[in-house]
Amino acid sequence: MPQRIGNNTVRLSGNTGILEFASVAGKKESEGPLKDKFDKLFYDTLMGQETWEQAESQLQLNATELVLEKSGLSASDIQVAFAGDLLNQCISSNYGLADFNIPFCGLYGACSTMALSSILASLLTDCDIAQNSLAVTSSHFCSAERQFRFPIEYGGQRTPTSQWTVTGAGAVIYSKQNPKVLVKEVTIGKITDMGITDINNMGAAMAPAAADTISKYLEDTGTVPSDFDYIVTGDLGKVGSELLIELLKKQDINIKDNHTDCGLLIYDIEKQDVHAGGSGCGCSASVLCAEFLPRLASGEISDILFIATGALMSPTANQQGMSIPSIAHLLHFSSLSSTLNK
Amino acid sequence: MPQRIGNNTVRLSGNTGILEFASVAGKKESEGPLKDKFDKLFYDTLMGQETWEQAESQLQLNATELVLEKSGLSASDIQVAFAGDLLNQCISSNYGLADFNIPFCGLYGACSTMALSSILASLLTDCDIAQNSLAVTSSHFCSAERQFRFPIEYGGQRTPTSQWTVTGAGAVIYSKQNPKVLVKEVTIGKITDMGITDINNMGAAMAPAAADTISKYLEDTGTVPSDFDYIVTGDLGKVGSELLIELLKKQDINIKDNHTDCGLLIYDIEKQDVHAGGSGCGCSASVLCAEFLPRLASGEISDILFIATGALMSPTANQQGMSIPSIAHLLHFSSLSSTLNK
Repeated sequence: MPQRIGNNTVRLSGNTGILEFASVAGKKESEGPLKDKFDKLFYDTLMGQETWEQAESQLQLNATELVLEKSGLSASDIQVAFAGDLLNQCISSNYGLADFNIPFCGLYGACSTMALSSILASLLTDCDIAQNSLAVTSSHFCSAERQFRFPIEYGGQRTPTSQWTVTGAGAVIYSKQNPKVLVKEVTIGKITDMGITDINNMGAAMAPAAADTISKYLEDTGTVPSDFDYIVTGDLGKVGSELLIELLKKQDINIKDNHTDCGLLIYDIEKQDVHAGGSGCGCSASVLCAEFLPRLASGEISDILFIATGALMSPTANQQGMSIPSIAHLLHFSSLSSTLNK
Repeated sequence: MPQRIGNNTVRLSGNTGILEFASVAGKKESEGPLKDKFDKLFYDTLMGQETWEQAESQLQLNATELVLEKSGLSASDIQVAFAGDLLNQCISSNYGLADFNIPFCGLYGACSTMALSSILASLLTDCDIAQNSLAVTSSHFCSAERQFRFPIEYGGQRTPTSQWTVTGAGAVIYSKQNPKVLVKEVTIGKITDMGITDINNMGAAMAPAAADTISKYLEDTGTVPSDFDYIVTGDLGKVGSELLIELLKKQDINIKDNHTDCGLLIYDIEKQDVHAGGSGCGCSASVLCAEFLPRLASGEISDILFIATGALMSPTANQQGMSIPSIAHLLHFSSLSSTLNK
């Protein structure tokens, strides 16, 4: 059974973990450093669909089909799915998962969704409410640009702090039966709002949320950054990552040596012209499943903190002069042989 | 500890329930049949704010303040909040709850949100992951109309099947300590899509989802409709309610005698010119807290099924010719003296 430790963290029983994981990504991602690590690449940005939104649904559908196939389970073996995405009314999830006929909990956590869905899925599995639970999310560059900024046909100039929404998805099945990677603790984040109003600087809006959640986790568990192979944030990018390191330094927490960010790993920042790095729900989801979970499963690395950050940014609220609230949720993933927090 | 019963239902330990609840509503609701039952009424539709969206945030903020006040708890006593709303990026929840500084899980379930948030909050409390957990949601007529249909200034004609989005909110605290009303079982719904494309006929889109969830719950628990004082749907309205009764009749399930719908209770359908009835996350949330929970707490009634239905409707997807997927989540609430499923 899970139990609360400290004020903000929950320690799982020790048996719950990841049975299987899968990642899919698009054309630009197929040209980046992680190109050989995704389970499936789609070079047609429309994925044979008529609209970007329908294409994004296909990303979730494909990631879910893949994770089921890899696990040997069928959809009816999954008792609950947690999913969400960046699009209004979370349509990538609603249309992408509809045909699987799995009990469905829709989430909205912006780019924090892979962590939020994973926290809730792993907790419900840890309490035996679900034997197998699914966490899935996606993003698509073209659907996100036209919803949050400009239609891509407009050809708007991108600012130096802007990030590139990843076209991709990740799906994870949580189970107590034969997990490959364990979930040790989880920390659900709080909404923070430091007054950032620039919709082209998501990293700066999200960094304080990540700092808050990480420092709370470390305090609750009595751990230090060097206990972990990596402290992996979701999509802070270049600007947000530097800010996070500075913010934690002020609290005497040094993460500089082992911090990394999915948004900085998925692209070659300079060559691929993505400015401050990758972003989107699909960024942390696909990089978690393509880069970190395989290395934890093989035992190459033993412990990571995964902190997906979400800028709860609304074009409507932004036009009304409101600042951008943010949130960050955290999971401690470990290899089966890890001895940390045993 | 909760345990699964049947294929789709979870039975809670029997100790978890509702510590406190609160409802707020707006001007039109203050002219309806439930006017004396809401905890607080706001006659200024803008609630002193500059925009409809900010006004809606105030609804969630006020409902949360009220439920804390009534319970004698402070925000720091709540370990997790589940909230969502109808607006893009769920901004009513994000801005409305930010200042409480409670660990926050954002949901998107359209009008099913009061049930979805209540299911997750009660489950996490039942597993002792949270001692006290909060479920809250809202809707606002003006913010919903301009986002989903037309700005109210446009003065569009309403069709006979259209529903009136409730301006209101409800907030519930779940706890094992001194609950007034118990949560016996919960059923997480599946996405259903019967091909409805009329955004002015949400009731028809949602009725099949409600029928599916209700029939699964009855099968899993071996109960029949007459075991309950009421089978309460969230906002099917006139059209959807008739359809639900017909759909279940085909499965030999007769709910006609004890079915009622929050969307039919909150307004005087004829006199208040709301066509097919009330709708919105705030409809089921405020009516649950104003009408049903007080009667369960007093023991006047002993058992209800509460099924909040959500039309996962997207204007973007609708314009692209997609049909409206729907979902319905269910909770069995009972009085402390109920003997059903003991």
